[in-house]
Amino acid sequence: MKVNKIGVLTGGGDCPGLNSVIRAVTKTAINLYDMEVIGFVDGFKGLVENSYIKLDLPGVSGINHKGGTILGTTNRDNPFHFLTLQNGKEEYLDQSDRAINNLKSLGIDGLIVIGGDGSLHIAQKFSDKGVSVVGVPKTIDNDLSATDVTFGFNTAVNTASEALDKLHTTAESHHRVMILEVMGRYAGWIALHAGLSGGADVILIPEIPYKIEKIIEKVHQRYQQHKKFSIIVVAEGALPENGEMVVQKLVPESHDPIRLGGIGQKVAEDIEKISNVETRVTVLGHLQRGGQPVPYDRIMATRYGVAAVKAFVDGEYGTMVSLQGNKIITVPIKDAVEELKKVELTSELVEAARAVGISFGD
Amino acid sequence: MKVNKIGVLTGGGDCPGLNSVIRAVTKTAINLYDMEVIGFVDGFKGLVENSYIKLDLPGVSGINHKGGTILGTTNRDNPFHFLTLQNGKEEYLDQSDRAINNLKSLGIDGLIVIGGDGSLHIAQKFSDKGVSVVGVPKTIDNDLSATDVTFGFNTAVNTASEALDKLHTTAESHHRVMILEVMGRYAGWIALHAGLSGGADVILIPEIPYKIEKIIEKVHQRYQQHKKFSIIVVAEGALPENGEMVVQKLVPESHDPIRLGGIGQKVAEDIEKISNVETRVTVLGHLQRGGQPVPYDRIMATRYGVAAVKAFVDGEYGTMVSLQGNKIITVPIKDAVEELKKVELTSELVEAARAVGISFGD
Amino acid sequence: MKVNKIGVLTGGGDCPGLNSVIRAVTKTAINLYDMEVIGFVDGFKGLVENSYIKLDLPGVSGINHKGGTILGTTNRDNPFHFLTLQNGKEEYLDQSDRAINNLKSLGIDGLIVIGGDGSLHIAQKFSDKGVSVVGVPKTIDNDLSATDVTFGFNTAVNTASEALDKLHTTAESHHRVMILEVMGRYAGWIALHAGLSGGADVILIPEIPYKIEKIIEKVHQRYQQHKKFSIIVVAEGALPENGEMVVQKLVPESHDPIRLGGIGQKVAEDIEKISNVETRVTVLGHLQRGGQPVPYDRIMATRYGVAAVKAFVDGEYGTMVSLQGNKIITVPIKDAVEELKKVELTSELVEAARAVGISFGD
Amino acid sequence: MKVNKIGVLTGGGDCPGLNSVIRAVTKTAINLYDMEVIGFVDGFKGLVENSYIKLDLPGVSGINHKGGTILGTTNRDNPFHFLTLQNGKEEYLDQSDRAINNLKSLGIDGLIVIGGDGSLHIAQKFSDKGVSVVGVPKTIDNDLSATDVTFGFNTAVNTASEALDKLHTTAESHHRVMILEVMGRYAGWIALHAGLSGGADVILIPEIPYKIEKIIEKVHQRYQQHKKFSIIVVAEGALPENGEMVVQKLVPESHDPIRLGGIGQKVAEDIEKISNVETRVTVLGHLQRGGQPVPYDRIMATRYGVAAVKAFVDGEYGTMVSLQGNKIITVPIKDAVEELKKVELTSELVEAARAVGISFGD
Repeated sequence: MKVNKIGVLTGGGDCPGLNSVIRAVTKTAINLYDMEVIGFVDGFKGLVENSYIKLDLPGVSGINHKGGTILGTTNRDNPFHFLTLQNGKEEYLDQSDRAINNLKSLGIDGLIVIGGDGSLHIAQKFSDKGVSVVGVPKTIDNDLSATDVTFGFNTAVNTASEALDKLHTTAESHHRVMILEVMGRYAGWIALHAGLSGGADVILIPEIPYKIEKIIEKVHQRYQQHKKFSIIVVAEGALPENGEMVVQKLVPESHDPIRLGGIGQKVAEDIEKISNVETRVTVLGHLQRGGQPVPYDRIMATRYGVAAVKAFVDGEYGTMVSLQGNKIITVPIKDAVEELKKVELTSELVEAARAVGISFGD
Repeated sequence: MKVNKIGVLTGGGDCPGLNSVIRAVTKTAINLYDMEVIGFVDGFKGLVENSYIKLDLPGVSGINHKGGTILGTTNRDNPFHFLTLQNGKEEYLDQSDRAINNLKSLGIDGLIVIGGDGSLHIAQKFSDKGVSVVGVPKTIDNDLSATDVTFGFNTAVNTASEALDKLHTTAESHHRVMILEVMGRYAGWIALHAGLSGGADVILIPEIPYKIEKIIEKVHQRYQQHKKFSIIVVAEGALPENGEMVVQKLVPESHDPIRLGGIGQKVAEDIEKISNVETRVTVLGHLQRGGQPVPYDRIMATRYGVAAVKAFVDGEYGTMVSLQGNKIITVPIKDAVEELKKVELTSELVEAARAVGISFGD
Repeated sequence: MKVNKIGVLTGGGDCPGLNSVIRAVTKTAINLYDMEVIGFVDGFKGLVENSYIKLDLPGVSGINHKGGTILGTTNRDNPFHFLTLQNGKEEYLDQSDRAINNLKSLGIDGLIVIGGDGSLHIAQKFSDKGVSVVGVPKTIDNDLSATDVTFGFNTAVNTASEALDKLHTTAESHHRVMILEVMGRYAGWIALHAGLSGGADVILIPEIPYKIEKIIEKVHQRYQQHKKFSIIVVAEGALPENGEMVVQKLVPESHDPIRLGGIGQKVAEDIEKISNVETRVTVLGHLQRGGQPVPYDRIMATRYGVAAVKAFVDGEYGTMVSLQGNKIITVPIKDAVEELKKVELTSELVEAARAVGISFGD
Repeated sequence: MKVNKIGVLTGGGDCPGLNSVIRAVTKTAINLYDMEVIGFVDGFKGLVENSYIKLDLPGVSGINHKGGTILGTTNRDNPFHFLTLQNGKEEYLDQSDRAINNLKSLGIDGLIVIGGDGSLHIAQKFSDKGVSVVGVPKTIDNDLSATDVTFGFNTAVNTASEALDKLHTTAESHHRVMILEVMGRYAGWIALHAGLSGGADVILIPEIPYKIEKIIEKVHQRYQQHKKFSIIVVAEGALPENGEMVVQKLVPESHDPIRLGGIGQKVAEDIEKISNVETRVTVLGHLQRGGQPVPYDRIMATRYGVAAVKAFVDGEYGTMVSLQGNKIITVPIKDAVEELKKVELTSELVEAARAVGISFGD
């Protein structure tokens, strides 16, 4: 089938590199295949409500290095469970057919969904209903299966690593324990990479339940080596052995940081209580989602965008573009969303961290 | 009097540029005047406990661009009210004579105190007791009288401005109000400068009590101009009209950010409650104190360090080096610590902010 | 006279902060005084050729942190000596009356000229012919009289200082002399500030002719202190004692770096020839003019833009806005362009540099 | 064989991440295997001249984020062809046995060589003579076979991409063609990645000889789309069809940029001559080798360092650690040095670049 017109939307939380994908999709579709490109506004909400803009070459010019998404996004709207005004009251209804009708009436041959776990689940359901869909894996958390890396992740690691560089000097000057709480509710990728890069002494991740005594042991051990400060990186989903996760359980896609009483705060209080060492917490929060993408993410996002259009031309519907090694391939969307990709305890990365003296509190 | 040996210490919270001052003091004292330089460790604590290192040229090499202080610092120790173990129990006692004796026994002719309001108060008291003291004004808050600018301030503004750049893209993509809480318990300098630089729509500072309705009015006005997001910078000491400051009252020097239930959180909750616009808060916290100083601060800190040594040679004891316009001068320390320098409501800077459309919530 | 409509243009070389001024001028004129604002395209060329755009609030939204100028600029076009096609051949003619007629026919009450020495000279000549003009001082070189600082300068210093940070590690690892050639044909402000910030060992500026032997003496002296590397910052207009400036003499405004055989290269060759120490040169060039303005420049540019509009309202024609200490004032344009502001040999800044061990090769 | 003592050295040009490898090697050897670690000073020179330091935990503390190498490096010294003073005159002699004797007399069981093509060639020759060697792939150029990526490369791309961001604003404001010449004498990896990230319009690399007419065609085509500026990235080894490489042929390891009359300059002159569009060149040079490594490189360098020590323990002599996909493996050194890894013309990366409209001048 000749693809003449494609739609594209960005779903879920903000992520550096979204604009690079939109730009690459648009340029590739127009330059190589003479397609028309429609951008739905504010994610799946625009698809249901038929709110869209036409994307052309001037419209995507100069956005490669910009954070955010020119299409807007939300992490609340699901066409299969959509807040609808019905007979004067609001109800959650299945509006997927309305969305599909919009695609048809616009003459759109297929849809590129740029999103994380939640958005790709929805994409899969549209695929099951016969829509030609290609997914692009997006999450700063890097916890999506079936791809080596998601775009946005390296930018988030960069932001967290820069924060650690800043905290280092203050920790050292004041002889403090400094805790940085980063994103990662279900997987510790950001914490692990930022900790390796930023010279952390302790890294706490959801995959490895921690014992507070082990953390304090590490702090004391450093004191004995005349290092009167320690740096701890805590993923928001880290939890003590036999404990429960401190963060509130929200819908999976909406993992904005929970500030009050988060795990970083808990670890700090426990350290101060037990060891009497002055401890401070910084919650990095939204700073991890914004800002200019680092070159690595701009390039990967561009490659993903190009590959997504080519996947359409090749008729590979129901797939997601994916990085495996140095290669971009396509995989079934459902392989990506079946289960989260977690840090393996015996992986070379964790072993490398231990080798350079990092404690996981276990 | 020929000055043969000087002491130097850093007091109060961490601040980018401390090392540049230490380096400049040491190099100037040795290169120009053949003095010896003693660095007391961990601020006034080292002075009381006679804990020090000898500073020489190799020891201050390569530290100009580094955050923190190679001498260590604390914001808790005051020789005039010093936690002392006396007959088996801890008491706060005046240990200033012990400190002065240490200076004498080390043969130190004078002391350079690099610090903010609290440390300079102590310096003044030593000066009153006959110690030859010169102060160097340090605070990221820029709220010290008798100097145009303190070093560290421009680095903190830079960090806050970069954070705003990051929040901008997410605010815009998600149509949110994004709030950044920055330091400034008594004066709004960081909030004002960062807001001007980072394109804030609303700036809330301690000097201008805000009305929540005025903030929401601004957010709505932007909606009507098709700008579905707003950026708000809040100094930690901002407070509503007829309200009380939300932060806890701690000792002046120790203005580390109070996370739980800070003013940023309050403003966010009030906006969501009244206007139903999705609002998120980020507390910048310790990130403002750390990291490499920006060139402006490295240069100013260097000039201050050189000038402090020259002030000694010129016998200008009891003074603080100060920037006025493009010139470094000396002023009596007591002029600097009498009252905090606050943002003036009718100043050109505030007027400029209003002219470009920034609301102060008043 | 009520000012109803103003024109604005940017002239001369690119400079970080131009967009901040344009934004502040436009917002102030519209928000406070309900004026119309016309932006002439490509500097004085647009004024002569009546090429312009209407500036409104949406048009200046989101440009505060962007380098460059949305109005375009050139450093070649002078209305009083304008390349004109006349009877089929090109001639340089006085087209200032044509420019003035354009202003009249557009109903423009006055013109804001954002520019450096060259552009402000032209502004002065229009003022002499009766046009209501206000100038805004722009040059990364900071060599404009009658203002403490020009916007763009601190960004250029930042770029040069970051480059020195990068060169440092390589110099140290390879035991090399590393030379960084920065802008500054007639004044050494960038070299002096970047050198102070970036820990240079030698700074060569036009104001202090150097002796190559003194440079090598410094390199050798460092060797004896076991520092087998040296960092030299060279302003492009630096010159040896009894020597002549190496750069080509171009028109004053057009001080783009001359790459081939520049002074940095000459110094490197002389060092290698005489001392046999491995020496490398990097010419920073255009990188100094571009990129996002640092917060200091964004704020100053904003203040200048606001003040320029207010100067019009106050009828202060023929003036330039200027920073003196912490205050924005207005000064006659001719005070600014009479002579370049050079580094004074006995200034506190030069003395501070010498105190921390920096050699000027004299 | 139990490995008790290992040596490590860094060879060739400076590269961000060297210190991270040294730190990881030292920490792993001491923490996990209780080895002693000897660092030879200034690369192979130190090995021949028996100049070394003992590496311990305090000695590698705080260097993870620092550019350069604490061990020093040179790109001139080859033990198999070593400048030796013999009977009063200097000759190039084989000093490899002297190096091997040094290893023996120090009781060193094996040698970790961190280097690029040249250094790994030498490592292979020592391996052939029976020395237990493990290599770590280092080059900012990324042109080493048998590994997906070398450390240092992503930092160089970051520096080049930031430079392009800066040049963009000036190019746009002045309607110029801006050329950035980056490293890459034999392979265009930096140019390709930086160009993709920085939004280049033309990328010239050694692997794809260019026609100047094709470049000008691209510039003109952009003019017709009302984009009056173009950005060109040129690898230093790029060359015109039927032309010869412009750079001087130096020894392979020593690819410092050739400033005078480099290829960037040639392309600029040709564009100005043929099209009359104002064109400027910036040569990035040494800035690409220095500065703090980006997190990606710090992490990879750490993993390489850990893996290199483990390779020793596993007896995998004569190998090099290598990244393949997400995994660190070992490969024979000779696989890495047989031939340079070049950009493939039909690779997905080149195709992606073409899809987003980038011309390779072919």
